[in-house]
Amino acid sequence: MSRSYKLRGEKNFQWRGMDVSRIENLSDIVFALVLALAATQSIPKSFDELTGLWRDALSLAACFGLIIFLWRTHHVFFRRYDLQDSAVSTLNAVLLFLLLAYIYPLMFMTEFVVKLYTGGFSAESPPSNVLTFAQIKWLYLIYGGFFAAVFGLFALLYAHALRHADEIGLNTRERVYTRYEVEFAIGVLALSVLIIACAFALPTALSPFVGMAYSLMGLVAWVCGMRAESRLKPEET
Amino acid sequence: MSRSYKLRGEKNFQWRGMDVSRIENLSDIVFALVLALAATQSIPKSFDELTGLWRDALSLAACFGLIIFLWRTHHVFFRRYDLQDSAVSTLNAVLLFLLLAYIYPLMFMTEFVVKLYTGGFSAESPPSNVLTFAQIKWLYLIYGGFFAAVFGLFALLYAHALRHADEIGLNTRERVYTRYEVEFAIGVLALSVLIIACAFALPTALSPFVGMAYSLMGLVAWVCGMRAESRLKPEET
Amino acid sequence: MSRSYKLRGEKNFQWRGMDVSRIENLSDIVFALVLALAATQSIPKSFDELTGLWRDALSLAACFGLIIFLWRTHHVFFRRYDLQDSAVSTLNAVLLFLLLAYIYPLMFMTEFVVKLYTGGFSAESPPSNVLTFAQIKWLYLIYGGFFAAVFGLFALLYAHALRHADEIGLNTRERVYTRYEVEFAIGVLALSVLIIACAFALPTALSPFVGMAYSLMGLVAWVCGMRAESRLKPEET
Amino acid sequence: MSRSYKLRGEKNFQWRGMDVSRIENLSDIVFALVLALAATQSIPKSFDELTGLWRDALSLAACFGLIIFLWRTHHVFFRRYDLQDSAVSTLNAVLLFLLLAYIYPLMFMTEFVVKLYTGGFSAESPPSNVLTFAQIKWLYLIYGGFFAAVFGLFALLYAHALRHADEIGLNTRERVYTRYEVEFAIGVLALSVLIIACAFALPTALSPFVGMAYSLMGLVAWVCGMRAESRLKPEET
Repeated sequence: MSRSYKLRGEKNFQWRGMDVSRIENLSDIVFALVLALAATQSIPKSFDELTGLWRDALSLAACFGLIIFLWRTHHVFFRRYDLQDSAVSTLNAVLLFLLLAYIYPLMFMTEFVVKLYTGGFSAESPPSNVLTFAQIKWLYLIYGGFFAAVFGLFALLYAHALRHADEIGLNTRERVYTRYEVEFAIGVLALSVLIIACAFALPTALSPFVGMAYSLMGLVAWVCGMRAESRLKPEET
Repeated sequence: MSRSYKLRGEKNFQWRGMDVSRIENLSDIVFALVLALAATQSIPKSFDELTGLWRDALSLAACFGLIIFLWRTHHVFFRRYDLQDSAVSTLNAVLLFLLLAYIYPLMFMTEFVVKLYTGGFSAESPPSNVLTFAQIKWLYLIYGGFFAAVFGLFALLYAHALRHADEIGLNTRERVYTRYEVEFAIGVLALSVLIIACAFALPTALSPFVGMAYSLMGLVAWVCGMRAESRLKPEET
Repeated sequence: MSRSYKLRGEKNFQWRGMDVSRIENLSDIVFALVLALAATQSIPKSFDELTGLWRDALSLAACFGLIIFLWRTHHVFFRRYDLQDSAVSTLNAVLLFLLLAYIYPLMFMTEFVVKLYTGGFSAESPPSNVLTFAQIKWLYLIYGGFFAAVFGLFALLYAHALRHADEIGLNTRERVYTRYEVEFAIGVLALSVLIIACAFALPTALSPFVGMAYSLMGLVAWVCGMRAESRLKPEET
Repeated sequence: MSRSYKLRGEKNFQWRGMDVSRIENLSDIVFALVLALAATQSIPKSFDELTGLWRDALSLAACFGLIIFLWRTHHVFFRRYDLQDSAVSTLNAVLLFLLLAYIYPLMFMTEFVVKLYTGGFSAESPPSNVLTFAQIKWLYLIYGGFFAAVFGLFALLYAHALRHADEIGLNTRERVYTRYEVEFAIGVLALSVLIIACAFALPTALSPFVGMAYSLMGLVAWVCGMRAESRLKPEET
C-alpha cells in the first residue's frame, strides 16, 4: 500500500485486497478455463490446415478480448473493496455461471462474423445456412441479454460496496467513483435493453445495424464521468 | 481480522485462514475444473443448435448450483479453522475424488430431469429408453450415496476441528457452532440413508416422490440450530 | 509458525513456506489438470451406461490415489524448505512433464487391471487382445521407469535442500529427516531398477508377480527410519 | 526478503513481489492449461498404442520445454518488479493470447519434426503429404513471427519497468540488468525478423537450414552481457 498507484493500483482508488482470496482464486480459474475452452482445437494435420487457423485465431481474439475485459472489471472490483461476504460470493457465482454458459454461444457468434467478413462463406455454403436475416433479432436477445445480465451483476456488486462504504472506509473520492461504476453499469444495462427492443421493433432489414448502438457505451461513460466530476467539485472546495 | 464480519467472514466465526493454502488452491482448481467439465460442449453450428442450448444451460445451472454449494461449505470450513494437517488433507482428497467421479453421473441426472420437465422427450424417444420406473430406486442409491458420503466427510472434518478446539483457539460460541455443523452433517447423512431405504422398501410407483424428503434438510438445520441456541444460552448468562 | 504442528505442519519439521509461491501454484494447477484429464469421460446416455461407470470410478480412484500421493510429497517438500531457486524450478518442471506424459499410460494400466479383476473381459475380447504375457516385462520398464524417475527427482530435490541446510536454517532433527528423505527416495529408485531387472531376467510366467516386490517400499522406509533414529540419538544426548 | 538469494531469487535482483498477484495467478493457470492442452491425448487401447506414445512424449517434451522457458521469463519479470498497472496487464493479456493461439501450431511443428527424425514417415505417407519444401519459408513467418511477437512483448515489459525504475526503487545493478533484458529481447526480435527475411530471400533448398541461425541467441546474450558489464564497471569504481 505504501507503493505508488502508478505501479500497482489506480489513481482514484487505494487497493485494499492484497492477497488473492479464494473467491478470486476460483474466479481466476474459471476465467482461464473459459479462455482455454475458447482456444480448444484439434492439431492441424497438414500445412493447409495450419494456415487455415488464422480465422480461428481472429475469432479467439474477439472472445479473448471480451473475457479479459470482464476479468479486469472483476479484478478491479475485488482489489478495490476486498469484499468476501455472502452477497458478493453469490453474485460472483452467478457471473461465473453466465461465463460458462455463454462461452459456446460467444464462439458461435465470433466465428460467424469472422467468416462473414473474411470471405469464408461460398455459394455452396452461404451464410443463410447458418443464420437468416429474420433470426438476427433473436441474437440481439441472446447476446444483449448476456451483456445486460453481466452489467446488472456489476451494478449490484458496486451498489453493495457503496452501501458498506463506511465499513470499508472509502474516502469521498472513492465513494464518488464507486457511484460512477454503479451508474455506468446501469447505463450499459439500459442500452442493452434498448438495443433488444429496437431489434424487435425495427424492420428486419435494419436489424444488423442496431448493434452499432453499442458504440454509445462511450457516451454513457462520458455522461457518468461528468456527473462524478460535478459531485466531486463542490466537496473538494 | 480487524475488519467487520459484514465484509469478510461470518457473524459466529472469526476467520483464521487468511492466505489461501495449497490444499485450498488444489481444491479450488478441482472445483473449477469440475464446473468446466460440466460446461464442456461443442460450438453450435447453426441458429437452431444455438437456440437448442437453453436446455444444456438449465442442466448446467443445476450442476453449477450444487457444486458451488459444496465449494462454499468447503471454503467456510478452511477459513474458519485454517487446518492443514494430514487428516484434513486426506478427507479433502476423498472429497475431491468424489467430485471428479460424480460429475458425469450428475450431468446425466440433471439432463434427464430437464428434458423430462421441458418436453424434451417424444413418442419416438420416450424417457423409458433412458430410464425405467424400476431403475429409479438404484438412482437413489447412487445419488443418495454421494450425498451421504459428502456430508459424512464434512461431519468428520468438523468433528476433527471440534477435537482440536483448544489448539485452534475457538471461543464458546465457535465451539457450539462447530458442533452444530457436525450434527447438521450427520443429520443430512442419516436423511440420505433413510431416503435410500424408503426407495427400496416402498412400491416402485412411489419411488419418484421419495426424493422430496430432501426438503426435510431445512428441518434438520432448524433442529440443530435450536440445539445450538439452547447450548449457548446458559453459557452466556 | 506460532501454531501447533498438530494443526498445520509436521512433528519433525517447522514449515517455512507460508504463502503459495508461483512454482507451487503452477504445479498445483498441473496436478489438478492431470486429475481432471484422468476423470474426463462422456456423459452416460442411459441407465446401463451410468451403472457401467463403476469400473471407471475404480480406475480413476487408483490414478487419483497415486497422483495425490505425489502431490503431498511435493507439497511437503515446498512447505518444509520454501526453496524457489533455479535448480528446484528445473527439477520441478521435469516432474510436471513426467506427470503430463504419464497420465494416459497410467490410465491404460489401471483400466486394464480393474477390468481384469472385475471380470470385464470375455471370451470374445480376452485380455490378450490388449496385452500378452510376453509384453508384461516391457510394462515394468515403462512404469518402473516412471517410478524410478519420480523418486530420482525427489532424491535430487531433498539432496539440494540438505546441501543448503545452513542457509535454510535447518536444525539437527530437520537435517536428519531431510537425509532420511534422500535415502528413502534413493531406496525406492533402486527397488524400481531391481524390479525392472528381475522382470527381464526371470521367466515370462513369473513376470506378473515381480510387481509385488513394491511392497518392499515399507521395508525401505523402515531401514531409512532406523538409520535416522540412530543418527539422532547420539546428537540428542 | 531477509533470506539468501541462493534459495529464493537471483544474484542481481532483489525480489519485490512476494505474494502471487491475480495477474500472475491468471497467467499461471493459462500456462498450465496450455501445457495440459499439449498433453491431451486419448487413452491407449492396446500395448501397441501404449508403446507408440513415445513419439507423442518427445513432441510434448519440446512444447513443454518452450512453454516452461516462457513461464520462467514471465515469473522472473513479475517477481523482480511486482508491477500490476494497466500497461503490464494489457501486455500480459496479449502474451496469454499468443500462447493460446499458438499451442496447436506448435504441436503441429514438434510432431512433424519428431516424426521426421524418428522415421515416422513411410513411402506411402511421405512428409511431403504434410509439408512441401516450398512451404517451409511460410513456417518461418508463422513461428518466427511468434518468437518476434513474444520477445517484442518482453522488450516492452522490461522497458516499462526501466521507465519506472525510480518508483520501483531499483538500484544501479538492477537498472543495468533491466536494460540488459530490454536489449536481449530486442536482439532476439531482430534475429527473428532477419531469419524470416533470409527464408524468403534464399533459395528454397537452403530454407530448412535458416533456422539454425537461432543458435545466435547465445551470441546476442553474450553481447548484451558485455554491454551490461561495461556499464556496471565505471559506476562501481
